[in-house]
Amino acid sequence: MNWQTTLKEIGTMAKAASYKMAKASTSQKNEALKLMAQALVENHNVIMEANKLDLENAKAMGISGAKLERLTLSEKVMKEMIAGIEEVIKLPDPVGEITKMWIRPNGLKVGRMRIPLGVIAIIYESRPNVTIDASILCIKAGNAVILRGGSEAFHSNKALCDIIRSSLEKAGLPADAVQVVPTTDRSAVLELLKMEDQVDVVIPRGGEELIRFVAEHARMPVLKHYKGVCHIYVDNDADLEKAEKICFNAKVQRPSVCNAMETLLVHRDVAETFLPRMAEVFRSAGVELRGCDRTRKIIDCAEATEEDWYAEYLDLILAIKIVDSMEEAIDHIHHYGSNHTEAIVTEDYRKSWRFLEEVQSSLVLVNASTRLNDGYQLGLGAEIGISTSKLHAFGPMGLEELTTTKFIAIGNGQLRS
Amino acid sequence: MNWQTTLKEIGTMAKAASYKMAKASTSQKNEALKLMAQALVENHNVIMEANKLDLENAKAMGISGAKLERLTLSEKVMKEMIAGIEEVIKLPDPVGEITKMWIRPNGLKVGRMRIPLGVIAIIYESRPNVTIDASILCIKAGNAVILRGGSEAFHSNKALCDIIRSSLEKAGLPADAVQVVPTTDRSAVLELLKMEDQVDVVIPRGGEELIRFVAEHARMPVLKHYKGVCHIYVDNDADLEKAEKICFNAKVQRPSVCNAMETLLVHRDVAETFLPRMAEVFRSAGVELRGCDRTRKIIDCAEATEEDWYAEYLDLILAIKIVDSMEEAIDHIHHYGSNHTEAIVTEDYRKSWRFLEEVQSSLVLVNASTRLNDGYQLGLGAEIGISTSKLHAFGPMGLEELTTTKFIAIGNGQLRS
Repeated sequence: MNWQTTLKEIGTMAKAASYKMAKASTSQKNEALKLMAQALVENHNVIMEANKLDLENAKAMGISGAKLERLTLSEKVMKEMIAGIEEVIKLPDPVGEITKMWIRPNGLKVGRMRIPLGVIAIIYESRPNVTIDASILCIKAGNAVILRGGSEAFHSNKALCDIIRSSLEKAGLPADAVQVVPTTDRSAVLELLKMEDQVDVVIPRGGEELIRFVAEHARMPVLKHYKGVCHIYVDNDADLEKAEKICFNAKVQRPSVCNAMETLLVHRDVAETFLPRMAEVFRSAGVELRGCDRTRKIIDCAEATEEDWYAEYLDLILAIKIVDSMEEAIDHIHHYGSNHTEAIVTEDYRKSWRFLEEVQSSLVLVNASTRLNDGYQLGLGAEIGISTSKLHAFGPMGLEELTTTKFIAIGNGQLRS
Repeated sequence: MNWQTTLKEIGTMAKAASYKMAKASTSQKNEALKLMAQALVENHNVIMEANKLDLENAKAMGISGAKLERLTLSEKVMKEMIAGIEEVIKLPDPVGEITKMWIRPNGLKVGRMRIPLGVIAIIYESRPNVTIDASILCIKAGNAVILRGGSEAFHSNKALCDIIRSSLEKAGLPADAVQVVPTTDRSAVLELLKMEDQVDVVIPRGGEELIRFVAEHARMPVLKHYKGVCHIYVDNDADLEKAEKICFNAKVQRPSVCNAMETLLVHRDVAETFLPRMAEVFRSAGVELRGCDRTRKIIDCAEATEEDWYAEYLDLILAIKIVDSMEEAIDHIHHYGSNHTEAIVTEDYRKSWRFLEEVQSSLVLVNASTRLNDGYQLGLGAEIGISTSKLHAFGPMGLEELTTTKFIAIGNGQLRS
């Protein structure tokens, strides 16, 4: 089959749909979302059948464990999808907002108006719920979407996409605003990534391998998220009780996610007081500690190697380093970090602001847990991921990050001289 | 020679310099710019010698005409470079601005703070003045720069870069904030485009071929500008005298640039009044007209083919099409346009706003010339180009577009529960 032609047609239909979506009213878009939530309930059995087929195929191919779990549309996941739709209905529509306006000496009124990005391609792995979670945000922000999920979730994704498409149509919006690439052929992804004239941006959702593959081959911009090697620096002017609670929360509350702390940096002046009590709390929660030489003179733990400073454990493991100053902590973060999330614990005014200003990560915190780097926690609402590259979006990507601004100019005959 | 190793070293030095640049004060950055302007005057002969060498080599290689002209650092170009530096000194420093701040229910103060992009690679063609023009904007916005100019301008670029580097150093800033790739080897560009861990964004400046090459091979984000196929739609409710002046300015004032009008769309109800007088004015300015069938029934001109609707003439040529409605004009723009600049001439309130909202180009104007799509004209100050892709920057890219925002959070022990 000639995927190049099929994909070009999908791209052309998406582009045409994107212009209709861009002028859709807020109530039309919300109506489509409401119909989607209803259809997910009404078509429960159809979805379960499709998912069962995918699960059987996956088991026959020897897939098991966490991967099989991610593929499963459990009752819990179904409920979360519906709750997600209801959340997005409540969010304000970003499209059409005039973010600034000024007047030029010649009387020309110039402004910036928020508009959708256009056509967004989403390339993801085994979780079929991403089909809904990602599409609803793109729809609310007035975009058209091309979805390319994991081959093992093909039938589930197809069933969910059918629901989205018929809901769009019932609300008077173009069904082609959401399309699934109708093949599990990997070469189709490569073709899709070449279509810079039809696709405005691609968002890969999944492991680092997938993201690197997309970044390497895409000719259009990529909104991406690599590792989260998050640091907390406990300053010599820290409130150590506060530090203990923040560090514990950042490491233990949910160790498997990107905003969990992976390396703890402690100022030498407080290390002897802070590390023994912190180590005790961590050990009682089952956290494995790996320290620098100076740390190991204070607490009993394994040796941290060079690799540990780069590691995103996503597990109950923590690297600990003693530093001589905040400057050394910042240098360490810039050298080994991943631009994701870093926090300082301090009661010192000057250092709090220097840390906020100098650390170049997507979220920099003073006296709060790294686990707060999340769209809901920061007050943006639902997010489509956390960007660790700086262009366009840096940090949690909510509705606003699925739009751009164009310039508008309101004149009365102004010319260039 | 192993360019891979050399480029990695350049990248590493640029990254280190970028952290120092990010915390440079406004007065330090302005001091470096001031020293640069002085050094351009003082080292006039050195620069001229280097440029002479490039020009001689270019002539020996058979380069002539416009390309040789672009390579020449004339007195006029030298003066413009210095004036450009003085302009950029006057612009407000975007770094550190807190663009928004809000408070979460748990008391956490969350904000967005403007920071530099980091390391910017600029890949350009024969004009050596881009070395200065691009670097000064990147420096003012707190970035480090890696420059890769055209091989034919190698000595000129080197001489200009030496001036930038010593000025940075004298102002207490790292010289490595601006580096030139020390080879004319084309494979070095390919290597540079793979360095996504060291380079945050690449900006190609030059012809469409160069830009497509960069977009295809870059693993990091690209800020790019393709064609400018700009349209003016003269509505049936237009003030035809205004329309005539705007259309004339947009086509004739400087036809060789990206924001000149290439296609004129005219509502059928005013075509018979408007086109004959407009054609007369255009012909007296030497503009070649190519019309659709209906146009050719009203005025005498060549036939416009399908290719003409896609054409960026950059010359005194204009395609003309009669349309039945504003909707048809917008459909034509979305189908054949390049997302650059489009204008409507109308006195109708509803249509003016519908055009502003529905046309998805980087600048949309009502009753003003497309030639106004320019950083200075819109009030942004100096620009590094006009982006026609929607991510991050859409339209003229000034200082603000050379920055991004990170999230900051000011807490008092906030945890995730």
